[in-house]
Amino acid sequence: MYNTKAYSAASATSPMSSTQIARRDPTEHDVQIEILFCGICHSDLHSVRNEWSSIISTVYPIVPGHEIVGRVTEVGSAVTKYKPGDLAAVGCLVDSDGTCLNCKAGLENFCPNQILTFNSPDKHLGGVTYGGYSDSIVVDERFVLRVPSNLDLAGAAPLLCAGITTYSPMRHWGVTEGKKVGLVGLGGLGHMGVKFAHAFGAHVVVFTTSPDKKEDALRLGADEVVVSRNADEMQKHAGSFDFILDTVSAKHDINAYLNLLRLDGNITLVGAPEKPLDVAAFSLIMARRSLSGSNIGGIPETQEMLDFCGKHNITADVEVIPIQKVNEAYDRLLKSDVKYRFVIDMASLKSE
Amino acid sequence: MYNTKAYSAASATSPMSSTQIARRDPTEHDVQIEILFCGICHSDLHSVRNEWSSIISTVYPIVPGHEIVGRVTEVGSAVTKYKPGDLAAVGCLVDSDGTCLNCKAGLENFCPNQILTFNSPDKHLGGVTYGGYSDSIVVDERFVLRVPSNLDLAGAAPLLCAGITTYSPMRHWGVTEGKKVGLVGLGGLGHMGVKFAHAFGAHVVVFTTSPDKKEDALRLGADEVVVSRNADEMQKHAGSFDFILDTVSAKHDINAYLNLLRLDGNITLVGAPEKPLDVAAFSLIMARRSLSGSNIGGIPETQEMLDFCGKHNITADVEVIPIQKVNEAYDRLLKSDVKYRFVIDMASLKSE
Repeated sequence: MYNTKAYSAASATSPMSSTQIARRDPTEHDVQIEILFCGICHSDLHSVRNEWSSIISTVYPIVPGHEIVGRVTEVGSAVTKYKPGDLAAVGCLVDSDGTCLNCKAGLENFCPNQILTFNSPDKHLGGVTYGGYSDSIVVDERFVLRVPSNLDLAGAAPLLCAGITTYSPMRHWGVTEGKKVGLVGLGGLGHMGVKFAHAFGAHVVVFTTSPDKKEDALRLGADEVVVSRNADEMQKHAGSFDFILDTVSAKHDINAYLNLLRLDGNITLVGAPEKPLDVAAFSLIMARRSLSGSNIGGIPETQEMLDFCGKHNITADVEVIPIQKVNEAYDRLLKSDVKYRFVIDMASLKSE
Repeated sequence: MYNTKAYSAASATSPMSSTQIARRDPTEHDVQIEILFCGICHSDLHSVRNEWSSIISTVYPIVPGHEIVGRVTEVGSAVTKYKPGDLAAVGCLVDSDGTCLNCKAGLENFCPNQILTFNSPDKHLGGVTYGGYSDSIVVDERFVLRVPSNLDLAGAAPLLCAGITTYSPMRHWGVTEGKKVGLVGLGGLGHMGVKFAHAFGAHVVVFTTSPDKKEDALRLGADEVVVSRNADEMQKHAGSFDFILDTVSAKHDINAYLNLLRLDGNITLVGAPEKPLDVAAFSLIMARRSLSGSNIGGIPETQEMLDFCGKHNITADVEVIPIQKVNEAYDRLLKSDVKYRFVIDMASLKSE
């Protein structure tokens, strides 16, 4: 066991502040990683403020962060895939039972006994797991990912959550060349979705409530931008989409988008509005449409996504901040004042 | 053009009563059918009372009926598949453009230019098409179906709508031996769903609000019956279903059923509640579940379904009535007082 610097919140209403946390010494299957960059995901903020308590209560102090990129500093005796000096990444998961049907299918993200990177029971040290707002982390080799060496490391960090969350449903629902794909919302998730859909060769349409986002959407890879408040503009696309990825986490009119799907088209939700969505049965029935959800991705697919990003040189558009600005970043996140993801340069933590 | 006896409603508030309607003389591709039995579908009643006016307004007088079984009396010169004396059936569709991608894929039920059996524009005689509450009908050969000779003809009539509506989504979503399949609602559609799911070799669970339906559900082919108001009983099935067919057309708690689906499980709606359903995003996201809709089936699949019914001797459980009792039957339908489908014996119309 060793101590390492971190940032934590002491309660749902406390700001994030500097602290020390304990990490286990690497066991034979563990990889110890010096964290270089950690993305700020909106779910960090939800967990810090205990806003998802109906699903999982936050145990305090909490050290959030699950978009982790760093360098291997030490490996256990049985580790075969990593050696000190390697680039490495960790996403939302650090363990799972490994024995259930989902784990055996490489879908650890749906394992009923999965251990999240933060705020999950820590079987090694007791208490809960601590995330990536920290100098160092120790993770079982099975949950460590390789980072293509050509990628910008700060921009690669958000791939571990925002990236896989948008990549996985597109692969699952068959987004390929020639498909017409919509993205609802152009934030941390949405902007990654645009990049992936474009890289898959799809015709990409971004829906936004803000006409001033048009230029940026086109720059990110969109072929068209539709202002969703304009009913005429929406109507032009009725019945034409193969797939729409909905990244909006506020309540919104999902039927307006369902009606844009062609036969057998699908909308997948990756944002999680707190209040239920009103779904008109006729919207689904009339063209055998479907509405579904998706939750990050399994470890093999996360590696596939990182390799795909390496090949296509895809990273997130990020604003790099020192950890001392994390509270300010949270405030700006609530106002969607970021293009498109905050990433903490963990070198800043060394001065604490 | 010739006259034939029928039952029609003159307005949304008029009872059904005896009338005469015109039918075209068979053209070269047409089949003329003497109607022997016609099922009463809830959508007959919705249309008669103009309750779906937001989607399609009813043109009066209306002659409903799209669960038609009869015998061929005459065929056009170019008709190759039918001859006088053959058993024949007609479902919800009597024409489509034949040229769109959906038609070419045998999915006439999703053709944008489909002609419904009643209350659609009649390109031959003008006005609207008239349905099966009638002595005789003339239909393009492409929309006429073969009826296996071993089936009870009254019980076969509901296969043309209730049958295909439940068969098609089960085939689409892969209901096969070993799958766990739920049926929500045990009415005209639901009881057909139980029979099909059982015949496909699935483990069939019927959800009902009425404990007194248990015995009948088991007789129809259910392996288990769950009283949906009993939360403990529901919880026992959490995360275990591959597929649930939801036939309920009143607003209900869809999340209670979504949570019963396993990874990648699907609920398909075939009932169409007037008010939107409240869908919690987390219900979908947490197990990559999907919610979809389905609308009857194409002509090739309808024939496949009838042939499947012939092979497995599947028909609807019906209460046969003379056409003079159709108004009474509508009243009873509103109270779900039928096991499980009214079918009109069209011989009764000859005495009018």
